[in-house]
Amino acid sequence: MNCELISVGTEILLGDIVNTDAQFLSREMAALGISVLYTDVVGDNRERLSDTLRRALSRSDIVILSGGLGPTKDDLTKEVCCETMGVPLREDARALAWIEEYFRRRGTPMAEINRKQALVPEGGTVFYNSRGTAPGCAVEKDGKCVILLPGPPRELNPMFEEGVRPYLLKKYAHGAIVSRSVRTFGIGESAMATRVSDLLDRQNPTVAPYAKSGEALLRVTARADTSQQAAEMCDAVVAEIRSRLGTLIYGVDTPGLEHTAVELLKKSGRKLGIAESCTAGLIAKRITEVPGASEVFECGIVSYSNDVKVRVLGVSEHTLAQQGAVCADVARQMAAGALRVSGADLAVSVTGIAGPDPSEGGKPAGLSYLALTDGVRTFVRKVTTGHSGPGSREYNRYVSSSNALDMVRLYLQGETDQIGNL
Amino acid sequence: MNCELISVGTEILLGDIVNTDAQFLSREMAALGISVLYTDVVGDNRERLSDTLRRALSRSDIVILSGGLGPTKDDLTKEVCCETMGVPLREDARALAWIEEYFRRRGTPMAEINRKQALVPEGGTVFYNSRGTAPGCAVEKDGKCVILLPGPPRELNPMFEEGVRPYLLKKYAHGAIVSRSVRTFGIGESAMATRVSDLLDRQNPTVAPYAKSGEALLRVTARADTSQQAAEMCDAVVAEIRSRLGTLIYGVDTPGLEHTAVELLKKSGRKLGIAESCTAGLIAKRITEVPGASEVFECGIVSYSNDVKVRVLGVSEHTLAQQGAVCADVARQMAAGALRVSGADLAVSVTGIAGPDPSEGGKPAGLSYLALTDGVRTFVRKVTTGHSGPGSREYNRYVSSSNALDMVRLYLQGETDQIGNL
Repeated sequence: MNCELISVGTEILLGDIVNTDAQFLSREMAALGISVLYTDVVGDNRERLSDTLRRALSRSDIVILSGGLGPTKDDLTKEVCCETMGVPLREDARALAWIEEYFRRRGTPMAEINRKQALVPEGGTVFYNSRGTAPGCAVEKDGKCVILLPGPPRELNPMFEEGVRPYLLKKYAHGAIVSRSVRTFGIGESAMATRVSDLLDRQNPTVAPYAKSGEALLRVTARADTSQQAAEMCDAVVAEIRSRLGTLIYGVDTPGLEHTAVELLKKSGRKLGIAESCTAGLIAKRITEVPGASEVFECGIVSYSNDVKVRVLGVSEHTLAQQGAVCADVARQMAAGALRVSGADLAVSVTGIAGPDPSEGGKPAGLSYLALTDGVRTFVRKVTTGHSGPGSREYNRYVSSSNALDMVRLYLQGETDQIGNL
Repeated sequence: MNCELISVGTEILLGDIVNTDAQFLSREMAALGISVLYTDVVGDNRERLSDTLRRALSRSDIVILSGGLGPTKDDLTKEVCCETMGVPLREDARALAWIEEYFRRRGTPMAEINRKQALVPEGGTVFYNSRGTAPGCAVEKDGKCVILLPGPPRELNPMFEEGVRPYLLKKYAHGAIVSRSVRTFGIGESAMATRVSDLLDRQNPTVAPYAKSGEALLRVTARADTSQQAAEMCDAVVAEIRSRLGTLIYGVDTPGLEHTAVELLKKSGRKLGIAESCTAGLIAKRITEVPGASEVFECGIVSYSNDVKVRVLGVSEHTLAQQGAVCADVARQMAAGALRVSGADLAVSVTGIAGPDPSEGGKPAGLSYLALTDGVRTFVRKVTTGHSGPGSREYNRYVSSSNALDMVRLYLQGETDQIGNL
């Protein structure tokens, strides 16, 4: 069973938007065990859309089109698909009632052109749109299945969850697929792959390595008759991976290090204070992306200048004069200052050279020092990314912030010998 | 002249990464006046890649492939392209020397498999890689041009700038294309489009509206014999747009509001202090993404709890008890506190409900209050995004941070009557 994605929209071909729908759908289809072999982007053009769909139908079992379901004359997807497949359109009363209701609730009159959005393919399955006006739909013909979805992610994503996934599961799921993401920090992709190289050749579950923003992850995917069996097969392999990688693993199916850090802080009832120099707010931003972060995080200080490091955080002018702002001692003093100012139980700090250029004193871009303190013990980590030049700034800042979160989670996991490296 | 993009990589089909290369290349080709009519994604599979390339060559003048130039056996792009086109590969001495040097500088030995990265198509143009090991290349045959580029954006983007764009300009530019992005803040896309609706029907320069992360922009593109002529044509239209939109425009060809804010701060020799609650570091992060931000920004306080608002920023406990944390008075007092703690000339603050849910007191997600003070005058702005529920948190935080930056730039532009709205 294989699938092809077609994203429709001239705005994608002009580079005005990133095609996040294709990523979302690719991931969801992979999780269903359906292989996406091709994805295409085509503009709002009748002929090219029809050609692209015809080719997709010739080589793929399932074709998912996203975009082009709006009310304007540019929105051609539904019309062109039905023409190409030889399926007539009919007006769907429930879709029309929903669209009318949608406008009524917003207190704006429904334009006549919105009426065309209530047209659906004869004999197809309709997916109603809980966030917008355009319904989605699925049409089957000659053993092929074509699914049409609205383009905006805030409409497409819930429609997939609520309508399309259940539809596909019912229709195509022979057995069940379960997948787990084992997320690590502190090891490169190739070093990780080496430690589990024998597992990478497995067939069921499969194990595949990926690198992502300075992290490495392993995806374990199992197929079995029931989802419980598939989950058990996954879990056995995850246990084996755990025995190889140990505390390098910060989570399984966790969205990111900030989630692990916040969860462990909540569990331990501790609060975190933050002092940031080169990351300048990024650690605080990541922590507070986790809903409920306010339970564990109250105060962050962005101390971008030496003066603020001295005045607000109490860093010693002498240390700054002797060693500069990017050194282990300043990181240590910043963490102590953050603990004091925030009144938290634990504080983490970072000072470094984000780049793209080296510091005036010749310290390289990508060098940072981080400290974590609980008021009694202080741990210091030195990080060198080796990245400089254009594009390095964002990467270096992100990796520094990940190291800070990694120190927090290792502390709370009791892995004190791995928090610092100095 | 039209172009097709082929992104190669199973990791894209699995949804592990977003295809940002396709967006980058689409935008760059549009700026060169070359239409991208299709973009495709295909996995690391010899047969499907060859089929996709063959079809692309049958319908497009220029085909750009990205990804699959690495050293492992999965990396097939160069080999498959040369086979499909009937062009032999040769080892390029300069590319090999560069790869050897690349490993030498990192102090790691070059693996034998990296040697294959020095192979390039016979008779092609080589683009050397300033950020990695894989060179890119262009091959011409039978009136078609195929360009191969490495997948990682930090290698692809500079290679395009340094090698591919000059190559394409020399080969395909008949006349010159100049494009300007007019960026606005504080007006929706459709309201903006209404004010310039007559300009949207123009042919040369063309004017096209776009919406992006709570902002609206107009792209003006002119084609002429020389780039000076094209630039003059653009500038005349930009002047007309300025007369319609006035100070809603924060920049032309500016990457974002943070750049305008930092630039104006530098010009005026003033420093900015920041106090953030719901945005929790995002304003500081955006300001410090601008290289050289340290000249104008020294101190940010993330005050996520009431206690920190009181203790660090001096917000009144009485105000918090009476009105809650999200109100105009707390924003005002936070800005005053930020000015005092930072010692800056100007301070901006934000307090709000990021979402996805309303506050316990029933204040809606997307509501925020911002204040800007210079110690004498204080301006307050109330923002309601109307976004709540899944996905709203990131959007609301971003829009709040943009409003803070907008207030800073309006203050420095002397537009004092537009800074606040309360």
